[in-house]
Amino acid sequence: MREEDTFGEWFNRLLLEAEIMDPRYPVKGLCVWLPYGMELRNRVLSVIRGLLQETGHREVLFPLLIPEDAFRKEGEHIRGFEDQVYWVTRGGGEELDVKLVLRPTSETSMYPMFSLWIRSHTDLPLKVFQVVSVFRYETKMTKPMIRMREVTTFKEAHTVHSSREEAEAQVREAISLYSRFFDRLCLPYLVSRRPRWDTFAGAEYSVAFDTLLPDGKMLQIGTVHYLGQNFSRVFDIRFQRPDGTHEYAYQTCYGISERVVAATLVLHADEVGPCLPPSLAPIQVVIVPIPFKEEREPEAYSEEVRRRLEERGFRVVLDRRNLRPGNKFYYWERRGVPLRLEVGPRESSSRTVTLVRRDRRERREVPLEGLPEVLSQTVREMEEEMRERAWRRMEERIRRVSTLQEAGRAAGEGGAVRIPLCGEECARRAEEETGLQVLGEELEGEGGNCAVCGKPGRSFLMGKSY
Amino acid sequence: MREEDTFGEWFNRLLLEAEIMDPRYPVKGLCVWLPYGMELRNRVLSVIRGLLQETGHREVLFPLLIPEDAFRKEGEHIRGFEDQVYWVTRGGGEELDVKLVLRPTSETSMYPMFSLWIRSHTDLPLKVFQVVSVFRYETKMTKPMIRMREVTTFKEAHTVHSSREEAEAQVREAISLYSRFFDRLCLPYLVSRRPRWDTFAGAEYSVAFDTLLPDGKMLQIGTVHYLGQNFSRVFDIRFQRPDGTHEYAYQTCYGISERVVAATLVLHADEVGPCLPPSLAPIQVVIVPIPFKEEREPEAYSEEVRRRLEERGFRVVLDRRNLRPGNKFYYWERRGVPLRLEVGPRESSSRTVTLVRRDRRERREVPLEGLPEVLSQTVREMEEEMRERAWRRMEERIRRVSTLQEAGRAAGEGGAVRIPLCGEECARRAEEETGLQVLGEELEGEGGNCAVCGKPGRSFLMGKSY
Repeated sequence: MREEDTFGEWFNRLLLEAEIMDPRYPVKGLCVWLPYGMELRNRVLSVIRGLLQETGHREVLFPLLIPEDAFRKEGEHIRGFEDQVYWVTRGGGEELDVKLVLRPTSETSMYPMFSLWIRSHTDLPLKVFQVVSVFRYETKMTKPMIRMREVTTFKEAHTVHSSREEAEAQVREAISLYSRFFDRLCLPYLVSRRPRWDTFAGAEYSVAFDTLLPDGKMLQIGTVHYLGQNFSRVFDIRFQRPDGTHEYAYQTCYGISERVVAATLVLHADEVGPCLPPSLAPIQVVIVPIPFKEEREPEAYSEEVRRRLEERGFRVVLDRRNLRPGNKFYYWERRGVPLRLEVGPRESSSRTVTLVRRDRRERREVPLEGLPEVLSQTVREMEEEMRERAWRRMEERIRRVSTLQEAGRAAGEGGAVRIPLCGEECARRAEEETGLQVLGEELEGEGGNCAVCGKPGRSFLMGKSY
Repeated sequence: MREEDTFGEWFNRLLLEAEIMDPRYPVKGLCVWLPYGMELRNRVLSVIRGLLQETGHREVLFPLLIPEDAFRKEGEHIRGFEDQVYWVTRGGGEELDVKLVLRPTSETSMYPMFSLWIRSHTDLPLKVFQVVSVFRYETKMTKPMIRMREVTTFKEAHTVHSSREEAEAQVREAISLYSRFFDRLCLPYLVSRRPRWDTFAGAEYSVAFDTLLPDGKMLQIGTVHYLGQNFSRVFDIRFQRPDGTHEYAYQTCYGISERVVAATLVLHADEVGPCLPPSLAPIQVVIVPIPFKEEREPEAYSEEVRRRLEERGFRVVLDRRNLRPGNKFYYWERRGVPLRLEVGPRESSSRTVTLVRRDRRERREVPLEGLPEVLSQTVREMEEEMRERAWRRMEERIRRVSTLQEAGRAAGEGGAVRIPLCGEECARRAEEETGLQVLGEELEGEGGNCAVCGKPGRSFLMGKSY
């Protein structure tokens, strides 16, 4: 990040230079995924798909278009979303009889169907997910991947249960599942229960994951909602109990978006560009031949290195372009390729390679014999370090404070705070007095005396937020 | 297909009973992919993704929303699509300044960006594809998977080249690629060059793949378009040649949709339900324990069979539900599971299984030792036979005729015809006189004297069509 840049300018340049996304599409808030970015996105999606499938979620695909009457059925929900939905009002030359909403999220598209699918307790639990585009007519400033009018990568899961206990256990499963997902992306996160005024429209409560971006603002990267019977009453999702009586079902939903890709790019970046977690990187290893004086590069040897690694399943590029090695290093660093092998006459004659990790840039000579094993080990170590480094950086910038004055000061220095508050009334007061946002109450956190009224309190997160 | 059914009723029931798709979504022309159908869809997509990636196509993702001015840029294109696009006219409470179209196809979304990406002949060829939903405001009767208002599985490839020759070679590559794709789905197809009046809006010419459904109508399952410089002139996609001069680029595009899934379900079905090509089936093998008299089922043995097959990568279900074997057979046949293993006390004591192929229903005893190899062999043989059977059935219903009278008669019997015609003028006349549709001129086909004017002609396909 150059000093003269804003975070937004830096991030836009990173996306374009790393060939992740092109923000120049001629409509505000819409972007194009470039091939390299798309590969990264698809690898991230396959991690979350795997975690969901392992835990019994099945993939489905619901329509994008929601008829106005279904959309308007749940009062809270529509109040939460009606200012930001796109309306389809015409088809061909005709005005539509029933106006259609582009889904901003899929409760009102899915739940009328759940009502048809669920008859008996034996149909439960129902656990489904889909990966789709959702649309929000954002009037605020948009930002690629972070605040989009078309969110092109929205993974939403929806579950239905026969009791409150089971549904709340599902909330905990979702939190655990997302934690493992963020661990795989080497992302640090804070988990908190959102205050009432920031609860998902129609939910009883919402738990959210936030991470801290380099500009000192919190980015929400995942949410888990307990819906109780709010929607099941409205959409008539009932089941028959073993004793023959009927009851409205208990529901949850939870989602992540391409913001997780944004966080992965940003939290492991340096001044040159991103550093991708090697197990997710579209290209894990770049081999750069180093010519020596007038000698030609050791062609056969670098091909052999490539072949050996590809045979073992590594995603490798051998860069034989007619460019200077330094230019190649820079080219691949800007794209976040995590591992580089330099192969010159010296390496060729000693049958070694020079291994350089993108994050530390330290050089190390490794024999070709056993190289795949060394690389596998390096991938593990590197991801562990990337994860720890990112956690440490975040934790360093989240101060534990006990007064509102301290909170304001700490946030001014570009971070967030943990502050004891006794409940939502004082949380509201704290927001008003500091101009900061209460993200929520930490699920696990140390208490203290409420910074507003002095009564015993619990740990809340406050800061600026996207 | 029961006699009293129309094809449409039968197909709708098949989709719901096989748990592929639920057509009960409360908007005409929109359906829900059910988990099992979604798995099938995703496996079909991974076949086409693989074929595209092997041939150098890279996946991208463009926005759904196209601004009115970009959409209206190419005159032919807009004339072809304007009667069937959905318009987004409002966001939140506001009328939009620039109205947005839901993409009916993505030329006008992609090509403004291609114009930014392409500068030099070294940027070419560009070969990209995406898998997205597209929207058509169909006023005709809609039909799940076949004529939808939201086509949820549209794979469209777009390529840009530096010469007409290279672009036309790409058309041939696409034809070959789609042929291999349909071979993998065991689908028979006919390839023809569409007449001028049925060419893709904005293309110089279109080549299409059709297959014949059980109701005697042709279903278009893939198209390949040569765009020439039509779009590149309008969207200013130019490149610099090695000699420094500039030229407009040459383009192609080609697409397939979920219609290929529909064809796969329908063309290998019998009165019970579909029979999925085993390499694509979400569940390849179902193991059904057969209890004998009062003996319990051989639990340990059926678990062992399952484990052996799963270890070798087969997708297996062991059905231990408390149902009669016959009910289980029917249950899995309705879902198209291609292979069944029956395991009773006899099999357990002889360490064999009884293997039943879904398509032939013949039974065969196979030793557990070596079962994975037998199953792999069976998968290959079965797909080969399914493909041949489907081809034979189609070819039997496509008569070669030499007069318009014969054409009308043959089509009346529920099929299509090959007929010699000298060109598009006589093709138009043939349509008018028979009420049939000219699908196009076969790329490879035997000629004869034009059925309209008697001059030397080439082979055209005529029939009824979706």
